[in-house]
Amino acid sequence: MIKKLNHVAIAVPDMDKAIAQYKNQLGAEVGEVKDLPDHGVTTVFVNVGNTVIELLHPLGDNSPIAKFLEKNPNGGMHHLCYEVDNINEAAQKLKADGARVLGEVKTGAHGKPVLFMHPKDFSGTLIELEEV
Amino acid sequence: MIKKLNHVAIAVPDMDKAIAQYKNQLGAEVGEVKDLPDHGVTTVFVNVGNTVIELLHPLGDNSPIAKFLEKNPNGGMHHLCYEVDNINEAAQKLKADGARVLGEVKTGAHGKPVLFMHPKDFSGTLIELEEV
Repeated sequence: MIKKLNHVAIAVPDMDKAIAQYKNQLGAEVGEVKDLPDHGVTTVFVNVGNTVIELLHPLGDNSPIAKFLEKNPNGGMHHLCYEVDNINEAAQKLKADGARVLGEVKTGAHGKPVLFMHPKDFSGTLIELEEV
Repeated sequence: MIKKLNHVAIAVPDMDKAIAQYKNQLGAEVGEVKDLPDHGVTTVFVNVGNTVIELLHPLGDNSPIAKFLEKNPNGGMHHLCYEVDNINEAAQKLKADGARVLGEVKTGAHGKPVLFMHPKDFSGTLIELEEV
């Protein structure tokens, strides 16, 4: 069902430092900083060759990653996003298998249909599925 | 410097359940279970198309992931491994940039030279570099 790893999302407490770590220290190609107020995050994509690292920093008062950074003040890996062909079929299959879908299919930060799966059903990893 | 994401390592409390999550629920191609007593882990590689998920379970009394699972009993993402051309050059550059290398260059779980970088210097993410 999953086709590829679209991105690894990392929540970071200091976006400028995180960009410097990836750009200057690891020598990766870092894109533009984008504010996504509807999603409560500022994001930057880092091209690491075969996939993308998405750096996330909270934006606004109700950021979905604020609590994660309270618990992990140094930052940390937040979720993995896998691509699927059909998000509704994926959701149905996973629900039938007993996995918990968090909420409904929504339009994700990249304008495509996404949904999140409960981390307790995937060995402690928050999994995003994106229809691509 | 980094060329590609070699793998995402996920520490899991129950290898059979984790394999079922990736194989049956997410429909990914799961390899053979391998015990690596020298590294204190049992591993399985999951092919997710453009990269690999490495599932890790503790093996023996001094597993390097035992403490991680004590703190994260459901499991969780443990590290990211990036490929580099030359591990010694990479280590020198990173040290010169002020990043902390954990220990020395060693032979990793896949028989290649690896080193680990301090997560506090990379926004809370433990980073492995592997010479490939």
